[in-house]
This record gives sequence, C-alpha cells and structure tokens, in this order.
Amino acid sequence: MRILITGGGGFIGQKLARRFGETGSVGGRKISGITLGDIQQPREFTAPFPINRVVGDISREADVAALMADQPDIIYHLAAVVSGAAEADLDLGMRINLDGTLNILNAARRQGQTTGRAPMVIFASSVAVHGGEAPHEVIDGIELNPQSSYGTQKAVGELLLQDYSRRGLIDGRGLRLPTVTIRPGKPNAAASSFMSSIFRDTLQGDTSNCPVSRDFAVWHTSPRTVVENLIHAATVPADVFGYNRNINLPGRTDTIGEMIAAMTDVAGPDAAARITWESDRTIEKIVTGWRGYFAPQKALALGFQADASFCDSVRNFLKNDIA
Amino acid sequence: MRILITGGGGFIGQKLARRFGETGSVGGRKISGITLGDIQQPREFTAPFPINRVVGDISREADVAALMADQPDIIYHLAAVVSGAAEADLDLGMRINLDGTLNILNAARRQGQTTGRAPMVIFASSVAVHGGEAPHEVIDGIELNPQSSYGTQKAVGELLLQDYSRRGLIDGRGLRLPTVTIRPGKPNAAASSFMSSIFRDTLQGDTSNCPVSRDFAVWHTSPRTVVENLIHAATVPADVFGYNRNINLPGRTDTIGEMIAAMTDVAGPDAAARITWESDRTIEKIVTGWRGYFAPQKALALGFQADASFCDSVRNFLKNDIA
Repeated sequence: MRILITGGGGFIGQKLARRFGETGSVGGRKISGITLGDIQQPREFTAPFPINRVVGDISREADVAALMADQPDIIYHLAAVVSGAAEADLDLGMRINLDGTLNILNAARRQGQTTGRAPMVIFASSVAVHGGEAPHEVIDGIELNPQSSYGTQKAVGELLLQDYSRRGLIDGRGLRLPTVTIRPGKPNAAASSFMSSIFRDTLQGDTSNCPVSRDFAVWHTSPRTVVENLIHAATVPADVFGYNRNINLPGRTDTIGEMIAAMTDVAGPDAAARITWESDRTIEKIVTGWRGYFAPQKALALGFQADASFCDSVRNFLKNDIA
Repeated sequence: MRILITGGGGFIGQKLARRFGETGSVGGRKISGITLGDIQQPREFTAPFPINRVVGDISREADVAALMADQPDIIYHLAAVVSGAAEADLDLGMRINLDGTLNILNAARRQGQTTGRAPMVIFASSVAVHGGEAPHEVIDGIELNPQSSYGTQKAVGELLLQDYSRRGLIDGRGLRLPTVTIRPGKPNAAASSFMSSIFRDTLQGDTSNCPVSRDFAVWHTSPRTVVENLIHAATVPADVFGYNRNINLPGRTDTIGEMIAAMTDVAGPDAAARITWESDRTIEKIVTGWRGYFAPQKALALGFQADASFCDSVRNFLKNDIA
C-alpha cells in the first residue's frame, strides 16, 4: 500500500517516513511506496520501497492532485502554517491551514469515489484547539474554544474531517498533538518554538530565551512517541472512534522548571545556565491561551501512548537528534 | 444606523425586518435603512426607513460586495442551505454555508478596516451543531459534534466568527437557534420541516405526515421569541461574551405528543386528526442526531429568553401567521 505525507519535509514527517522505512509495513500491510510532499524538496533517505519527493503548495488544487497522483491508501496530513505565523498573517493561515486542508479532503473524497475505497486521512490537529472557556484540566468532550487563528483553523479541519468520515467519503482520524519537544533543527515560527529551543539550543552549546516563567505548565510529547501514535492511528479500527474521529492524544504535563531539572539530571547544569529569561508578550499571549493539563481517556482506551518522563526525551534527543 | 439581513427573504429575516420597521431602532439607536439580501427578491413592506432589496448569492464575492454597499453597522447573517438540502448535496451546503459565510466575514473584515469600526455580525447557528458524543442534556461548553453536514458547516462558521471577533476584525455574536416552530408558509428542505408542518398544515385544513414517534423530544422556540432574541443579541455588550461569542439560545423541550396536545387544547381536535404517522428513515436519521434537552445557562444570564408554553406558539400562529 501507498502512503502520502504532507509536510513530508518537516521534522515529524521525516521521522515518520524514516520509521516506515525501518518497519516496511503498517498495520500488517506492506508499504509499496511513500510520497513526501512539501513546499521545499524533502530530504532523501533509503527505504525498502521507493520514496517519491514532490514539491507543492497544498493551497493549490493542481499541486494537491500531483501529490495524490499515486492514489495513496493512507494520507498523513501534517502540512501547516505554524501557530505564530498563522497569528501574524491571518490570510496565510487561512490559505494553508483551511483551504489547503479542504483541498486534501476533497482530493481524498474524489479518489475514494474513483477507486471505490475511501482513503484513510490522518490529520495532525493540535492542543491549540483548546483554550478560552475550556476548564483548567481538559477532559474529552469539552467545547473547542481556540484562542489563536492556528487553533481555529485546526478545529475547522477537524470538523470537516469528521463530516467527510461520517458520510463515508474518507476514513478520517484527527489527533490533537501536544507540544512536541525536544524538536531537532532550528527555531521556527511556532509560538511553542521555545519549548524545544531552551533544551535543544542550550544542549548544543548556544543560549536560548524562555519567554514564560518556570511554573508555566506544558502538555507535551516526545518526537518518538508522537511518531508511534501517528502510526498507531492507522491501525485502530474505524468504528471504535464512534461519533467523533478527533481525539486528544496522550501526553504529559511538566512545568518549564521541571523540564529544566530533568535536562540537568540527564546532562548536567551547563545547558540550563545558558537559558535567558526575557518575557515576550506576543508569545505569552498565545501559549497562555493553551491548556497544560489533560485527561485524554478516549485516546488511552484506543491504545495511544504517552512518555514516561521528560528525562527520556532528553536522552533520546542526545542519542538521535543533537546537531 | 444601517442593518443588512442575509436570508432577508426568508421567514425569520422578514419577521425580523418587519419588527425593526415597528420599533424603528435597535439598542437605542435609530435605524436609517435596512438591506434585505436573498437569492430571490425579498417581499416589500412599509417601514419608517428605506428598505433596500438586493438579489444575490452569498457564495459569490461580488454579490456580497453589493449586499454590503451601504456599509451596514449590523449584519444579520441568516442565509443558509437548510439541513435536509445540505445533507442531500454536500457541495451546495459547502458553497453556501461555508464559502458564503466566509465571504460575509471577509467582507465585514474589509469594511471594518476601511471604516475603522468593526461591524457587528449576528450569525444564526443551529442546535444541529450538537449531537454524537454530546450528553443527553446539552450544557454549555460541550464539544460540538454535529452529525449532519449542515451542523458541521454551522460549527465552522461559529469558529471563524469567534476568531475574527477575537482578532477585533468584527464584533460577532453566534446564536444556536433551537428548532423554530410554528413556521408559516410552505414545507421546506429542512429535516425539521415536519416540526412546523404537522401543526401549520393541519391547522390550515391539510394533512401532514409526522416521520418520528410521539415521544420524540424537540428543543424549540417560537418565531416571535427567536426574533426578539436576534434583536437582543445586538444590545448585549461585547465583553460579556467572554472567550466564546457562540451560545446556545434558550428554548423549551416538549415531545411531539405534548405539542400536539397543546395544539388540541388551543384549537380543538380536528387538526391533530389530520396528522399521518409514516416513518421516514432519512429525516429520522438527521433529527435523532440532534439533542432535545438543553441547559443554556450563559444565554439566560445574558438576558436571552424562552417561550412559556407551546400553547402560546399555537395562539400566535393562529393570530399572525395562518394562511
């Protein structure tokens, strides 16, 4: 079977594809090829099946048609304009996160009508759909009340994914990702970028600024665990999702202070000493609109997993991702 | 000040405009003119201010620009493809209910940027946004889990209304209307159409079919009360909405059997005898996905109102709306 990963040049898309390269199959079915789509050419890597790398913009229908040329059985829709960028530029976020997602859903719908098999669409939604009137601890079934344009656009994607699935046009699964940390690479325009930078950059010998206080609580997941959960999503039977294909993924809550202490436990005190503490109102306004505490009962019942500790995340970063 | 009513040829739009014609003002401010927009020419009526009737399709940006030519201070966005039609034709519903609503929001945003004053947008959402995993009694703050494409498209409109309001681009207020009964006129393609027809048509001497059983519980409101609530929405200060501009309107719960008994109390037994009872799976599937019981605490706290009895609704219909 064939897999398409939008945002396939991004760090989660790359990790997911490489993991498929190791396993060679998903849910017991052999992978015959993967298409990686992104706005810039995704990096190459070796796998026991062909990797097709396609440059395209999901807000253009013709580009989406090119991404889908191989009629993927599973579409991982990870491509998005991140939170800080979507807040800074409403039109950009609407074009990529809303129109782009609609283009993917409609292309999947057309493919299903042509082939007679509704493709699976696994959608990376976000913790940012929660906020505002949501309670301090987010339980399942709470009204989505995003306090950012990014969260709003993700919530819209969820609703459409659910409706298209209800109609049998696609087999959708929406996962609300906790903040993924420690991300490798460079800081990006996500408001949550610092939640990786203050660990990654300081472990790599650079300074990094933390724009919130030590007691700020983060609902987070490691790159490794989120990749495992994205793969698990493809193996869960459709009917167990019931009336709602969108779920809060498991994660864990630690304060920034607790995460720094974990880093120090694993790697010594030097990295933490390279963190600076200047507050940033723009970032603070977005991330304090998110929730730090969750009880994702449905996802746990469906077999999705959380990390045991942030120490493990630091060890994994040092082993696999440090520059 | 100027008012635009999309769906201004529809029965709620007409009642709302005529009510403004009686009061001449809203929230203490004098009305200088009303634009009624619809896909067919809205009916004329006399008012103490000019009525501008515009034929247009909200899915066309140029038509929306024509509707907004007078730079309305308040936009009542009532135009929609109804539930049964949106379920039968996904593309039609997406075009009018999603693209059309986006066109209205974006035109309002552009107007606000031009004039320096964010226009008020009062959006008619629907009880159909609730269902699926929502509890038996819908309390405020429950995840929207629509089980129809109509409900999905309304929920998307709500999210965008909220985000545009949060950004200060518009002053949005989204009201989730209970089923409005007794509607005058003809049956329409709403799945809830029978909830008016079995009273209206039989009171008018015709037969009418009820596709659900007598114990089916309906969360409903009268035309008169929903018009008063739409007007009230324009007078509530923006800040009291807090983090969510979208609310469940008050209504009342009665079973179909209780509503028929109320009709018989008011008008005698002849009408009820003209109801036939053939089940209809298509309608049943949509309306049993809705909820019959609500506790709309936030709307009640904001001064929105419910009907005291369905007997009053029958009396009002006989007095004002019977053909």
